[in-house]
Amino acid sequence: MKELINLINEKLDEYMQITYPESIFKAMKYTLMLPGKRLRPIMCLETAKILGCDINKMLPTACAIEMLHVQSLIHDDLPCMDNDDYRRGKLSNHKVFGEANAVLAGDALLTFAPQLIIEKSEDLSMTQIVRILHEYTKFAGAYGLIAGQVVDIESEGGKLDKTKEHTLDFIHLNKTAVLFRLAIRCGAIGAGADDKTIEELDDFAKKFGLAFQIYDDIMDEISSFEEMGKTIGKDKNSGKLTYVSLYGLDSAKRKFKTLISECYDIIEKYNSEVFKNIIKKLESKVGD
Amino acid sequence: MKELINLINEKLDEYMQITYPESIFKAMKYTLMLPGKRLRPIMCLETAKILGCDINKMLPTACAIEMLHVQSLIHDDLPCMDNDDYRRGKLSNHKVFGEANAVLAGDALLTFAPQLIIEKSEDLSMTQIVRILHEYTKFAGAYGLIAGQVVDIESEGGKLDKTKEHTLDFIHLNKTAVLFRLAIRCGAIGAGADDKTIEELDDFAKKFGLAFQIYDDIMDEISSFEEMGKTIGKDKNSGKLTYVSLYGLDSAKRKFKTLISECYDIIEKYNSEVFKNIIKKLESKVGD
Repeated sequence: MKELINLINEKLDEYMQITYPESIFKAMKYTLMLPGKRLRPIMCLETAKILGCDINKMLPTACAIEMLHVQSLIHDDLPCMDNDDYRRGKLSNHKVFGEANAVLAGDALLTFAPQLIIEKSEDLSMTQIVRILHEYTKFAGAYGLIAGQVVDIESEGGKLDKTKEHTLDFIHLNKTAVLFRLAIRCGAIGAGADDKTIEELDDFAKKFGLAFQIYDDIMDEISSFEEMGKTIGKDKNSGKLTYVSLYGLDSAKRKFKTLISECYDIIEKYNSEVFKNIIKKLESKVGD
Repeated sequence: MKELINLINEKLDEYMQITYPESIFKAMKYTLMLPGKRLRPIMCLETAKILGCDINKMLPTACAIEMLHVQSLIHDDLPCMDNDDYRRGKLSNHKVFGEANAVLAGDALLTFAPQLIIEKSEDLSMTQIVRILHEYTKFAGAYGLIAGQVVDIESEGGKLDKTKEHTLDFIHLNKTAVLFRLAIRCGAIGAGADDKTIEELDDFAKKFGLAFQIYDDIMDEISSFEEMGKTIGKDKNSGKLTYVSLYGLDSAKRKFKTLISECYDIIEKYNSEVFKNIIKKLESKVGD
């Protein structure tokens, strides 16, 4: 895991060159290079690997997905959105570079990510590149990540009373699970996997994404700023719809465990130490 | 021209379907469907046409470029950027939908545009699609549109005193000319043009883009809200670097005329009524 993280950090640093006008590239790179778990690019590379593909082939795509993730964090933290001053333990982008640059740095990451895939994926076919870009554009936009963010904002203060469970699943599938789905689907496409395999791994990604979001909701309740690197208790205080607020802590933990167990079932046959380690780490933090 | 505008509006309306969560799609569609000149998509289609390509082939790309343009307008108008309450004669996006939705609507357009190109360009080859997406990602991001916007913001209040001319050209080439370049280059790629033709037309696009920006600067000085559909005199009042502020009105007009004359020289052999009409309209507004 550590080696993968180092490799990804090294590549992110290499891909993200600072040129004129420096202010925008510095803003993009600042949040990108904050120490992160790099879960999404790791899962993209690991998916390629368990399907027999050289991970070097997928490094541009894996890094592009991390850039998309960071873009969503920069815009989410803006004063007009979640208004968060901290991210990954450091000041958030707009606190360092100002709001205008934070908006533009997010925009620039959103287009630099696919540019990187196009320019650096020499070992992928044109069809594979188009398929990967199609997944990217679908999951990054109003049919994915942004749909989740919009409904999440609308859920604040309990404004969405009706069919809360359906709404909560929609938010988490779109706001959180989509990036894991994107990572895993792209890894599988790069490896030339058939549709059945892609859909099976996609199912894993959905379940893992939901489990990850429940983990995040639980941590928002029981963790500390030091551990999470971001403001804690915010979701609760802003009346946001979370698994914990809707079902209570115990029930959220049970739901988390069920999903994790289903994840193990799907991934078992691939015998992946990396996937197992990622899941185990979440399990150990949530506890009994 | 009117027929082309109608065709583009019809396609924009068709491509931009409102689905759940409606708030984001409505915000995206609101600014997109405000009456605009549709210059960029028209130039994309006309370039394809003069090079012998059926314009229907390029409708998704042409509309995608208009979406990118609208995305940049929505984010430019935000309070943390140019803070403009009006756009195309109506309230700007954040005044109607709030800042959070305006940021997200821009993000969503930025990814929906390439998604549209991928999903609807059945008559383009995979290589053409990748080339078009490459142009899109380069020109939309920190190597294009956003670079121009960043330096433009930094130029406010006369903060960038040194090498002003170079800075002004950088802003206008990146903030304004890139979208015309993108439109024309994509039209040529779709038509299967050779590199020499693409570069020749690209030169036209650069010159036209600069002329268009000088026209815009002149209008900011001599026009009215009614005519332009946006706040007038803002650039002057905020101390922004413009052709008029740097060279004076007469000199700006002379520079405009020189560029327009060079545009005529390049485009003459294609005998395009559409390009001629577009240029003539600008000329008539700038006057003598």
